[in-house]
Amino acid sequence: MASNKIGQCTWKFANHVHVLSSAATVGPMEGEGKLKDSYDRIYPDLYAGQDTWEKAERTMMEDAVTIAIHKAGLTEREIDVFLAGDLLNQNISSSFTAKTNQIPFMGVYGACSTSMLSLTLAAALVDAGFAKYAVAAVSSHNCTAEKQYRYPTEYGGQKPDTAQWTVTGAGACVVGLVHQGPRITHATIGSVQDMGIKDPFDMGSAMAPAAADTIQKHFQDTGRSPKDYDLIVTGDLASVGLPIARELLEKAGYVMGERFQDCGLMIYTSEQDTFAGGSGCASSAVVTYGHLLHEMCVGKYQRILVVATGALLSPISYQQGESIPCIAHAVVFENEKGGEQTDAGRY
Amino acid sequence: MASNKIGQCTWKFANHVHVLSSAATVGPMEGEGKLKDSYDRIYPDLYAGQDTWEKAERTMMEDAVTIAIHKAGLTEREIDVFLAGDLLNQNISSSFTAKTNQIPFMGVYGACSTSMLSLTLAAALVDAGFAKYAVAAVSSHNCTAEKQYRYPTEYGGQKPDTAQWTVTGAGACVVGLVHQGPRITHATIGSVQDMGIKDPFDMGSAMAPAAADTIQKHFQDTGRSPKDYDLIVTGDLASVGLPIARELLEKAGYVMGERFQDCGLMIYTSEQDTFAGGSGCASSAVVTYGHLLHEMCVGKYQRILVVATGALLSPISYQQGESIPCIAHAVVFENEKGGEQTDAGRY
Repeated sequence: MASNKIGQCTWKFANHVHVLSSAATVGPMEGEGKLKDSYDRIYPDLYAGQDTWEKAERTMMEDAVTIAIHKAGLTEREIDVFLAGDLLNQNISSSFTAKTNQIPFMGVYGACSTSMLSLTLAAALVDAGFAKYAVAAVSSHNCTAEKQYRYPTEYGGQKPDTAQWTVTGAGACVVGLVHQGPRITHATIGSVQDMGIKDPFDMGSAMAPAAADTIQKHFQDTGRSPKDYDLIVTGDLASVGLPIARELLEKAGYVMGERFQDCGLMIYTSEQDTFAGGSGCASSAVVTYGHLLHEMCVGKYQRILVVATGALLSPISYQQGESIPCIAHAVVFENEKGGEQTDAGRY
Repeated sequence: MASNKIGQCTWKFANHVHVLSSAATVGPMEGEGKLKDSYDRIYPDLYAGQDTWEKAERTMMEDAVTIAIHKAGLTEREIDVFLAGDLLNQNISSSFTAKTNQIPFMGVYGACSTSMLSLTLAAALVDAGFAKYAVAAVSSHNCTAEKQYRYPTEYGGQKPDTAQWTVTGAGACVVGLVHQGPRITHATIGSVQDMGIKDPFDMGSAMAPAAADTIQKHFQDTGRSPKDYDLIVTGDLASVGLPIARELLEKAGYVMGERFQDCGLMIYTSEQDTFAGGSGCASSAVVTYGHLLHEMCVGKYQRILVVATGALLSPISYQQGESIPCIAHAVVFENEKGGEQTDAGRY
């Protein structure tokens, strides 16, 4: 059977799965960036009223989830399942958010690809009737990720220009079978790619082949090409990884052009020193849920492909000399012809 | 809609989703335990031919997955999606296994509840036609978990009797729409329970309310009672947690009786000093995939409920004074009347 699968690794959502609402919450630096008018909440500092960065990250996820549910005109009790993940050890931002909202919870993990991983599963569960409404969410925080993956944050270690800046923020969206807002039509599930890169300060190079692989499989499975999309956006390849992915895809015969962009390059201004650009689960999430879905509702884009990219390393795997396995999951958002495209304020 | 959901948080798999095969691989101590004849591979030492414990854990998961796929008469290329999780930071056992097997990969995390979390999603995706065949897998390793969650393993810190012993091993199973072996009919998705327990050396007490909550919701959603099951087994409540869960359920009116057992109490002999009993993702996985499914095939059980329990803490959340959020996910396995119940060797 597998009637909802097309090609090698693409799922087709046969029913009308739509994003009913979305929300993005961000830290102060993101709130001064290029998309500063796109966010639902900008915290004045990195603590968000809490006494640790970890609790601050959790607050950002809790707020994004609450805002998204509220925008959809729903309550927590009406949501059937909450799918969430983050970068912290043992996924604690997500688990503690699930403690707060008390929605049946399924934790997921795909590093920075978790945004589209959680959304893909949410869409599949709604499409198949296991949930009427599902919420997908992710978060990341510059200071928690720094101490988790690299050095104590206060140490202020020097970094090369290939390094990226973890985005502080969270994104959430509500998915349901309701004719409003952008529809989710397909998702392409990535498999792990590893070209042997071991440098955790060059995630863009490590992740680029995973992005290119998933995009190429998406085109093969759907019979589509770049021109079928108004925008194809990767999660956090940034200035080092995006050109590599572009080159890999062009070698495979796909002319990506101007429509091929990266969320990590859309968040900060050039004056903000973020090395190669933004990264983290929140990179693709705050851009997609805070900005792109709104742009779709006001008619700027009709069909977009969001390709969230993840580096599946841990400090232990790095210390034991292992290379960085990477993955990318892609989701198609589409304005439905004749569908209601009102109330862009929900996105 | 949500036609495949019944009650508050239970999913019904309307199609014939079956476990086509399963496999369990374990360390030397488990290989000398009560279920020593149930495992597919027993490694002679904790390194499993690798030079670190983390790589050993990964080898155990890789082997469990390979054996399960082989038993089902399939190849990796025929599997549509691989759902896996483990206890290590950033889920590396699962991600590196996904690098090896190259199956489209979705990482999941629910601490020790990950066994039934991954299986629930695998069953849902097969039921809905997003995958023809899916593999669910988990792993844990005593030495990697010890250094991850507590103290350096070599330090040999003293523990109270309420502590548990992380099971070394991995379990995997293949799910598909084929009339053979035990059918997966329902799953109940847990929400986070937290009674304020902060002691990481008493996970049984922390997790018991989550197990009781999910079991109670399962009965409410399905209209069933304990007597509808030949066995109701929790993942790793062990000798401290199981009586608490039993008491909570009896207070709610459910007489659990002898059919209510715990995987963590089924693995080791009384001579093996494991404090309150086994724990870890592998606890429920090696018992279910190595032992219980086989017992179903030879007719000992007709219908069982496996309730995997997870403590969603991290060392950071513990150090910051937080209590331990817990969750439990439950899956119903059932021998189908008139179905072929042959070849118990696949389990």
